[in-house]
Amino acid sequence: MLFRRLETPGLAHHSYVLECGGGQAVVVDARRDIGGYLALAREYELSITHILETHRQEDFEYGSASLAAATGAVIVTGDHPLFGRSDRPLRDGTTLTVGTTRIVVHATPGHTPESVSYAVYPENSGSTCWGVFTGDALFVGATGRTDLADPGKAGENAGVLFDSVHQKLAPLGDQALVFAAHGSGSACGSNIADREDSTLGLERRTNPVFTLTRADFVRHKKNEHLPRPPYFAHMERVNLEAGRPVPDVARIAALQPAAFQKTMRDAVVIDTRSPDAFASSHLPGSYNIWLEGVPGFAGWIANERSKLLLVVEAVAQIDTAALSLVRVGIDGTIGFLAGGVPAWRENGLPVASTGVVSASEAAAWLDAGRARVLDVRDDDEWRAGHIGGAMHIYVGDLESKLPAVDTEERLIVHCSVGHRAGLATSILARAGFTDVYNMLGGMDAWKALGLPVE
Amino acid sequence: MLFRRLETPGLAHHSYVLECGGGQAVVVDARRDIGGYLALAREYELSITHILETHRQEDFEYGSASLAAATGAVIVTGDHPLFGRSDRPLRDGTTLTVGTTRIVVHATPGHTPESVSYAVYPENSGSTCWGVFTGDALFVGATGRTDLADPGKAGENAGVLFDSVHQKLAPLGDQALVFAAHGSGSACGSNIADREDSTLGLERRTNPVFTLTRADFVRHKKNEHLPRPPYFAHMERVNLEAGRPVPDVARIAALQPAAFQKTMRDAVVIDTRSPDAFASSHLPGSYNIWLEGVPGFAGWIANERSKLLLVVEAVAQIDTAALSLVRVGIDGTIGFLAGGVPAWRENGLPVASTGVVSASEAAAWLDAGRARVLDVRDDDEWRAGHIGGAMHIYVGDLESKLPAVDTEERLIVHCSVGHRAGLATSILARAGFTDVYNMLGGMDAWKALGLPVE
Amino acid sequence: MLFRRLETPGLAHHSYVLECGGGQAVVVDARRDIGGYLALAREYELSITHILETHRQEDFEYGSASLAAATGAVIVTGDHPLFGRSDRPLRDGTTLTVGTTRIVVHATPGHTPESVSYAVYPENSGSTCWGVFTGDALFVGATGRTDLADPGKAGENAGVLFDSVHQKLAPLGDQALVFAAHGSGSACGSNIADREDSTLGLERRTNPVFTLTRADFVRHKKNEHLPRPPYFAHMERVNLEAGRPVPDVARIAALQPAAFQKTMRDAVVIDTRSPDAFASSHLPGSYNIWLEGVPGFAGWIANERSKLLLVVEAVAQIDTAALSLVRVGIDGTIGFLAGGVPAWRENGLPVASTGVVSASEAAAWLDAGRARVLDVRDDDEWRAGHIGGAMHIYVGDLESKLPAVDTEERLIVHCSVGHRAGLATSILARAGFTDVYNMLGGMDAWKALGLPVE
Amino acid sequence: MLFRRLETPGLAHHSYVLECGGGQAVVVDARRDIGGYLALAREYELSITHILETHRQEDFEYGSASLAAATGAVIVTGDHPLFGRSDRPLRDGTTLTVGTTRIVVHATPGHTPESVSYAVYPENSGSTCWGVFTGDALFVGATGRTDLADPGKAGENAGVLFDSVHQKLAPLGDQALVFAAHGSGSACGSNIADREDSTLGLERRTNPVFTLTRADFVRHKKNEHLPRPPYFAHMERVNLEAGRPVPDVARIAALQPAAFQKTMRDAVVIDTRSPDAFASSHLPGSYNIWLEGVPGFAGWIANERSKLLLVVEAVAQIDTAALSLVRVGIDGTIGFLAGGVPAWRENGLPVASTGVVSASEAAAWLDAGRARVLDVRDDDEWRAGHIGGAMHIYVGDLESKLPAVDTEERLIVHCSVGHRAGLATSILARAGFTDVYNMLGGMDAWKALGLPVE
Repeated sequence: MLFRRLETPGLAHHSYVLECGGGQAVVVDARRDIGGYLALAREYELSITHILETHRQEDFEYGSASLAAATGAVIVTGDHPLFGRSDRPLRDGTTLTVGTTRIVVHATPGHTPESVSYAVYPENSGSTCWGVFTGDALFVGATGRTDLADPGKAGENAGVLFDSVHQKLAPLGDQALVFAAHGSGSACGSNIADREDSTLGLERRTNPVFTLTRADFVRHKKNEHLPRPPYFAHMERVNLEAGRPVPDVARIAALQPAAFQKTMRDAVVIDTRSPDAFASSHLPGSYNIWLEGVPGFAGWIANERSKLLLVVEAVAQIDTAALSLVRVGIDGTIGFLAGGVPAWRENGLPVASTGVVSASEAAAWLDAGRARVLDVRDDDEWRAGHIGGAMHIYVGDLESKLPAVDTEERLIVHCSVGHRAGLATSILARAGFTDVYNMLGGMDAWKALGLPVE
Repeated sequence: MLFRRLETPGLAHHSYVLECGGGQAVVVDARRDIGGYLALAREYELSITHILETHRQEDFEYGSASLAAATGAVIVTGDHPLFGRSDRPLRDGTTLTVGTTRIVVHATPGHTPESVSYAVYPENSGSTCWGVFTGDALFVGATGRTDLADPGKAGENAGVLFDSVHQKLAPLGDQALVFAAHGSGSACGSNIADREDSTLGLERRTNPVFTLTRADFVRHKKNEHLPRPPYFAHMERVNLEAGRPVPDVARIAALQPAAFQKTMRDAVVIDTRSPDAFASSHLPGSYNIWLEGVPGFAGWIANERSKLLLVVEAVAQIDTAALSLVRVGIDGTIGFLAGGVPAWRENGLPVASTGVVSASEAAAWLDAGRARVLDVRDDDEWRAGHIGGAMHIYVGDLESKLPAVDTEERLIVHCSVGHRAGLATSILARAGFTDVYNMLGGMDAWKALGLPVE
Repeated sequence: MLFRRLETPGLAHHSYVLECGGGQAVVVDARRDIGGYLALAREYELSITHILETHRQEDFEYGSASLAAATGAVIVTGDHPLFGRSDRPLRDGTTLTVGTTRIVVHATPGHTPESVSYAVYPENSGSTCWGVFTGDALFVGATGRTDLADPGKAGENAGVLFDSVHQKLAPLGDQALVFAAHGSGSACGSNIADREDSTLGLERRTNPVFTLTRADFVRHKKNEHLPRPPYFAHMERVNLEAGRPVPDVARIAALQPAAFQKTMRDAVVIDTRSPDAFASSHLPGSYNIWLEGVPGFAGWIANERSKLLLVVEAVAQIDTAALSLVRVGIDGTIGFLAGGVPAWRENGLPVASTGVVSASEAAAWLDAGRARVLDVRDDDEWRAGHIGGAMHIYVGDLESKLPAVDTEERLIVHCSVGHRAGLATSILARAGFTDVYNMLGGMDAWKALGLPVE
Repeated sequence: MLFRRLETPGLAHHSYVLECGGGQAVVVDARRDIGGYLALAREYELSITHILETHRQEDFEYGSASLAAATGAVIVTGDHPLFGRSDRPLRDGTTLTVGTTRIVVHATPGHTPESVSYAVYPENSGSTCWGVFTGDALFVGATGRTDLADPGKAGENAGVLFDSVHQKLAPLGDQALVFAAHGSGSACGSNIADREDSTLGLERRTNPVFTLTRADFVRHKKNEHLPRPPYFAHMERVNLEAGRPVPDVARIAALQPAAFQKTMRDAVVIDTRSPDAFASSHLPGSYNIWLEGVPGFAGWIANERSKLLLVVEAVAQIDTAALSLVRVGIDGTIGFLAGGVPAWRENGLPVASTGVVSASEAAAWLDAGRARVLDVRDDDEWRAGHIGGAMHIYVGDLESKLPAVDTEERLIVHCSVGHRAGLATSILARAGFTDVYNMLGGMDAWKALGLPVE
């Protein structure tokens, strides 16, 4: 009996394929690149007959429309206009039978108004719920953010979410397995646990939505401050149509150094190497986003109209990077630098460097008054403790909101470990800052060394 | 947080890798070929520090000793002499801490006297059990067989098992995830569900060990009649030492037809093609075991001292077949037929055929009194309904207990779908029966056609 | 320096990727599915700048147009209107420089009027030819057929081909490597050697085009009688436009047995299992074409307008089969039988069988006058020796030209080893012949047993 | 007809598998890890019956003994005591028949005294040689070094080699394919062409052994100055026994940072990341060898008695690195740093940096008299042109022969592109040099910028 969670790296998105009996299967919250679903259906010789959406996702592009076209499956949603395209909008409490499996739709608003959960009753489980696809209503250890549509309504939405979880999910029983739409690292929630397997009973004992009172939970959610990348708006738009077909990333071509140099004039160049390598030697004007960070952070510096070029450590990373972009609706990648940075410099083309500094050396510089600190982590991280005297600008905001200091002043940039600071240093270098150091190891190293935190 | 179930096909054995915090991981009920565990540890950059055994398994060979040698991990068991080798025998109720995870050992005898379960409490789950490795004490929808050591004590052991489940597992709570050592298709239990994911709460509502009274459960288990393949005895012996290293199946060599013919004189030849292909054309004297059936059925016709040769549909099946044999302790595979049956016959070497018959044609023959039926399914299947007038001999017993009919009489052999009947026809052909037909489609086809069942 | 031959199984077609210096590469005679070329270009970080065609191929569909669209490369051909689309038609003797490599075009008609060869001179090899892409002008051990456009002109064309080889290729020197468009097993030539690596010097000593006189060579070619599958006409048409994009075979869907049964009413069903398995049990009305035979033989029973369904041994074969069809322009595959023949019959759906017979048993039948022989090999094989008293109809012609015997008469059908005879028996079964036997092992087994040949 | 060249990256070693008819195959110059040969034999269903050695290789460890043990094949060599183990020593001119293929042994000394070549005559090629395995006697565009046993006899040996090539190989004919034991980048020859496919006719027109007179060729070879890594001596010793079994690199374990730190005290730490990443942040005391450089350069800093630890960019590199070491007989790799350098520094453990500089900036420093240059390329590269005023120490010699300058003086280290300079800077850092810069891009960048060369 096939049941498989497909995890989308970088977005911590979970979609699911569930065999339902009679050779039929459903896919829940399909991502834009549908190859994985087709391959599983092929391998297990199943017919995908239904595509379930828990809500109109905002952090990735749906593959529902493509999957429906490829398989003839119908797109199932809750009965709410915010879903956009729906082949079968289901009212709260409706039962959908697929093969020998009953699936009951529960309206669970709060994260978004249209959010639904799907409770699953396989053959022979009678009235006992086996598991529930909760979308962003309930994560393992957390809940979906409630500030998306309007940060001012985060508290109000939190109350709605609390009620959804308590009135619609809790009654399904402690035994029910929980299948959430996101895991640890998602932009759709804060403090999601890195355990993936859970049950309603486990959540009932450990998740703030259960361990806090309604009022405390509302306060708790009002205090969450999560970034909202600009690409979310585009996702919400294309997901109204259940997503678009995926472009063919195999066509992204090698550009020899001279051709790359010419093409990059009006393109966004993303260098997916480690911040260590980027610091030593990179193409002037390029952005540094580590490979796993591409889906989550490219949306701050590029959009659906951008022309993009890639610089990678190894060609195997090109598909990963390009697919990561495509999953957030950024389709404009047209080429990569043949031979990478080594070929570029062996051709005598210009390179640039930025600085790196260890946490202990950074502390020494600060003691000597020789540098200033720029913390580019998000608000919640900042408030949980930071280096004394540091400035704070979230990395996503940095390009539009540069630090108000002299571009020749020495800046120590840091995040938690060094990745986001790599992006930040590249943004600062593009903006003309000349004495910028990435504190590799970040706050983790700082704390491990016992250095002081405010 | 890595948590992975590795399923061994054909044996329906489940082993597990669980990340425990601090870069440490445990492996539960490791199979003999340990490459999968090492690969996961490599990929996730974890150190395997403990190997947990739930009981001395009898249907496959452990990889515990090899894994301990490869990684330096310790072998953890319950505190019972039947375990044999143990680096850390733990008494009932003891807590083992690995990384940030607590693991509590519970003695859960019944399937075997030494059986234990391991309840898992990750960091921050407090006193709530996250999940439990139940070995063969509790499967999804079923329980381990209780007749292994002594069929006469199946009822007595069932009572012990009932008490283990109710006194040791049930108190862990409905929310606890259940991680059993076997899934559907295992020789260690009957009617195991083909859902793999479950919780104690789900089992409490659906598993006979919970839905029946103790007395009814004992009766229920006394009525289970499961085959006990001869290789089990060998497994119990080698597992006393926690298993042996795995031989290198890459060395199994192509034997050109003439060399194969010479070598097969004192070897067991297993033809892993479909019963359809086998029926048309095969090497005289060869056994037919379909690929997925090799681990479960080879132990009836070969043992740890056998020299084996393979005939396959495609060379990719050789590793699968050989590894399947190795997993049940049968290491003597030395070669395969180069070019398969086509090359054999193109060289003018002798081939044989057996008959096939569809269920509808078989019914016509029976109506006309032109054939007898031999049902080779197991006792439980036979008693659940069979063709009127059929003989019944379990396929595993067939070689030692041939049907008491004339070898020239027309025999229709069947199982549920045709695989085991393929093995049976090959055994009968070896024994000199000349008019044998495999009823392809088996009882499934028979019933689908609405033919009568007793 | 990347140089790679890509072999298309079943068609014995060879295409090539050659790195030319400066990060540029050419592809020679690209097949329709261009993923392999893009993947190599990606891996070696090369820009594909030119696509070379040796002639308008007739046995497979070109990928030139797709590859040009994906990479921006130009399509290079000889200067002859039969090429159809050409971005750069080159006259005989013209030099094309790519990167640091010189490529000289030589008109080498004979197989077809427009055929050219491309002689390659890498940097530093001066006036010494390194290797030559010969298309179908020169194979290893053979030459392209000369009967394609008009069998009556096979001799005349052979003379033209002889002159091309002697006047244009031989002067390139013994040292030059030979890169032909086809290898052993191609429908475009007879007796191609199964060595793939050769030189002009080796051919000069062993190839009939060199070892025979012109007159003898013309006679030799006039005696070649190769089948011309009907799909060739379609290929010639689409290759005028340099081929069409490839459809997405990942979308070919599992059809559960009942749905398959309904869909097959107006579809061509191809069963790619071995003739052994097919004989035992198959869907009534299905054709049997072994997997490797699909590209070469499907064109006799289906065309570009057919709707096709597949029955396979294992799902991994679906992509192979579907891609094989696509490569010869047959795009209508819409589904496969979920669960294969076993699932079909377990659902009680109707199956059929055909007979098999070994060569020795067939000989006994013939001695007893109990059967007639139908030989379905091609003309050249038939004339090289056949069973006394046999009828001869080439398998490709069989559907339109059934044997003139009673459909209840016992027929022994054979080819060289049993594959084509499998297709033939399925055609005969469809046509109502009821007592048909595939002589598995074919003429190879017959001869190995020392049975008489005429 | 299987014929396959297996290229060993980093060593530019070529071994070959050749199908010989009758289901038999030979392997030529097998490397230590024999899995590739067994996999090919499996895939093509061939029996490996002979393992041919062209000479006692010195730059890698043979797998002949392992392959013989795995397959029962015999080890074939020339008839010379320097070969060590031989199951069938063949005198000059002897013919070995395998299947339907004749293989003639020709003594071709010069690179080493025992060197032989194997000329291949497949069935039907009559007296025409199809191809020849030349070992190190003849490469594409070059010849094997003649200075190995005694640099003083390089000229004398060159004369012997010249005679071998002219008297033994040339007579095989222009048409014969050349299969050499090494390609471009090998330590066994200089200026090997990066084309892999060649013929004797092509070599006759382009290779110095043919285009020069004997006297000029002797002078040419006397002027070759190739490094001789210390591990060569070990290889020559173990190859006397035809090599040893390969250790299981899957067992190389993740060491969490604290455990790694403890273990590295008496171990050689090799960091296989790019020199860019290494420069930014690395473990103090570690060596930097880029991944592809491991087989060629590790032998300068570690030997068969070393205990080794790895630091990698991604875990997929561990097998590559460890296998690279094993191929040159260095088996002591016991672990890798879990989480890589990021995890190390996030744990607050100490890191170090070295400098990088672009060619243009380096030129500016030199103009300003602010730095000295250390060129670590080999003698031949140095003499072909270097930066004015530079010191020259070959990277392999650097550890034992440090530059005679103050350790605080600013040093610009360079090689051709930056890889060997990465190793050099790590050696200098270990030796206490504190102001060292890797000129990334190396001489290639220097020249591309038009900077002056002496």
